[in-house]
Amino acid sequence: MPSTTGPMLETYPKSINLDRAKLAAAVDALNDCAQACTACADACLSEDMVSELTKCIRTNLDCADICATTARVLSRHTGYDATISRTLLEACATACRSCGDECAAHADKHEHCRICAEACRACEQGCRDLLATIS
Amino acid sequence: MPSTTGPMLETYPKSINLDRAKLAAAVDALNDCAQACTACADACLSEDMVSELTKCIRTNLDCADICATTARVLSRHTGYDATISRTLLEACATACRSCGDECAAHADKHEHCRICAEACRACEQGCRDLLATIS
Amino acid sequence: MPSTTGPMLETYPKSINLDRAKLAAAVDALNDCAQACTACADACLSEDMVSELTKCIRTNLDCADICATTARVLSRHTGYDATISRTLLEACATACRSCGDECAAHADKHEHCRICAEACRACEQGCRDLLATIS
Amino acid sequence: MPSTTGPMLETYPKSINLDRAKLAAAVDALNDCAQACTACADACLSEDMVSELTKCIRTNLDCADICATTARVLSRHTGYDATISRTLLEACATACRSCGDECAAHADKHEHCRICAEACRACEQGCRDLLATIS
Repeated sequence: MPSTTGPMLETYPKSINLDRAKLAAAVDALNDCAQACTACADACLSEDMVSELTKCIRTNLDCADICATTARVLSRHTGYDATISRTLLEACATACRSCGDECAAHADKHEHCRICAEACRACEQGCRDLLATIS
Repeated sequence: MPSTTGPMLETYPKSINLDRAKLAAAVDALNDCAQACTACADACLSEDMVSELTKCIRTNLDCADICATTARVLSRHTGYDATISRTLLEACATACRSCGDECAAHADKHEHCRICAEACRACEQGCRDLLATIS
Repeated sequence: MPSTTGPMLETYPKSINLDRAKLAAAVDALNDCAQACTACADACLSEDMVSELTKCIRTNLDCADICATTARVLSRHTGYDATISRTLLEACATACRSCGDECAAHADKHEHCRICAEACRACEQGCRDLLATIS
Repeated sequence: MPSTTGPMLETYPKSINLDRAKLAAAVDALNDCAQACTACADACLSEDMVSELTKCIRTNLDCADICATTARVLSRHTGYDATISRTLLEACATACRSCGDECAAHADKHEHCRICAEACRACEQGCRDLLATIS
């Protein structure tokens, strides 16, 4: 099922101040990362070694919340405020970096951490690619 | 970009009490509907006839919040509680029905409402398909 | 710091279809329960016996998400749709019941679970009191 | 009803890296601001002059999402990561500043904007007070 992010962007009735392709890519990466982090936190919670994964769970929960909120803010174009988008994208890229590093440290033992680390890396890149166009 | 929902489901370390294919389909439809509703609310806000779209905006906001929360709850399998999943899926299907009806009423005038109505219909169906397996 | 929920309700420019006192009480209880559940999940995660608290953490996360979304939906009055409010309140009361029961089972060992159980009970009651006025 | 934020902080089983009084004050201000912004967006939507309030509605929605997420992240202490807290607090203070300015511009005409502007100012201050302790 292809995402509706791109098609919905095309229907926005006024002008959009951001590169539409990079914007759609960032929103899709954010939603995918939020989903992966929510699932990874829960999978960690069911591992026998959960006591060694508590930092991973916490960072997953933060990253899921921040990515979901960033996707929402980037999906709004009415009354655009570049300073909000920029600072939030910076916070989100920071969270994705931390969560990607934490998950990567468990990637050899837990496949859910490996997949989640990839989603975090892709999301961090999507945020930075978009940030580079805001200046 | 294919969703990570299915691959992440495969990595869950314990058993899952729901049909995995229907579960992954529902989660993807929920995330897609949440995204479409957030974007539709914002597009409505930028239409010249915004005063005729206030109910649509409100229902979009409700549907986005409820779908996002339902996707999260369904992405957790640890300590599964069927009564929470069932009542939440019922509330979510209700919200998707209302939002789909409201958006459909504006579909001939606004392409974002047409696409969003489709996402709501698909999400309602995904919720009901999963609900049918829980009882 | 008194909540702004009641004062904001007074400023809504159109009529509201629900009992304002019960509505404000429910929204405050929902926000308080969401906060308690988020904090309880994290406190459980830092307990040495975290492996015995995984169901509690999961139910806390669900309850926090559902309460936060219910508070948002109840804070919107434009284009009111009773069927969404009713089914969502039922799902939320169900989640609060489950989470209150789970936290109560750990209340003698963990003070955060005791306080959280109380917040869940109060929230379930606030939801049911409001539900009784909708039907 | 007093907030459970402070009492829950006291029950956290490990050490907390932040000033507890400033932390509890920030979390309460964030939750209050999120609630005020959600209600203000909806009240604006019901004003006859909604077409002049679209930027206010949008900024309210952003601010509500960002404050709610920041409250959650600050309510977690397990596996604390100062870089996430700091960048998110900066983004949140930015959003509160923008939303407070926008609401203040309508405060003489709409009481909900006046109350919401105050909640945004208090929240921005709470974020900056806490930020000053993180360094």
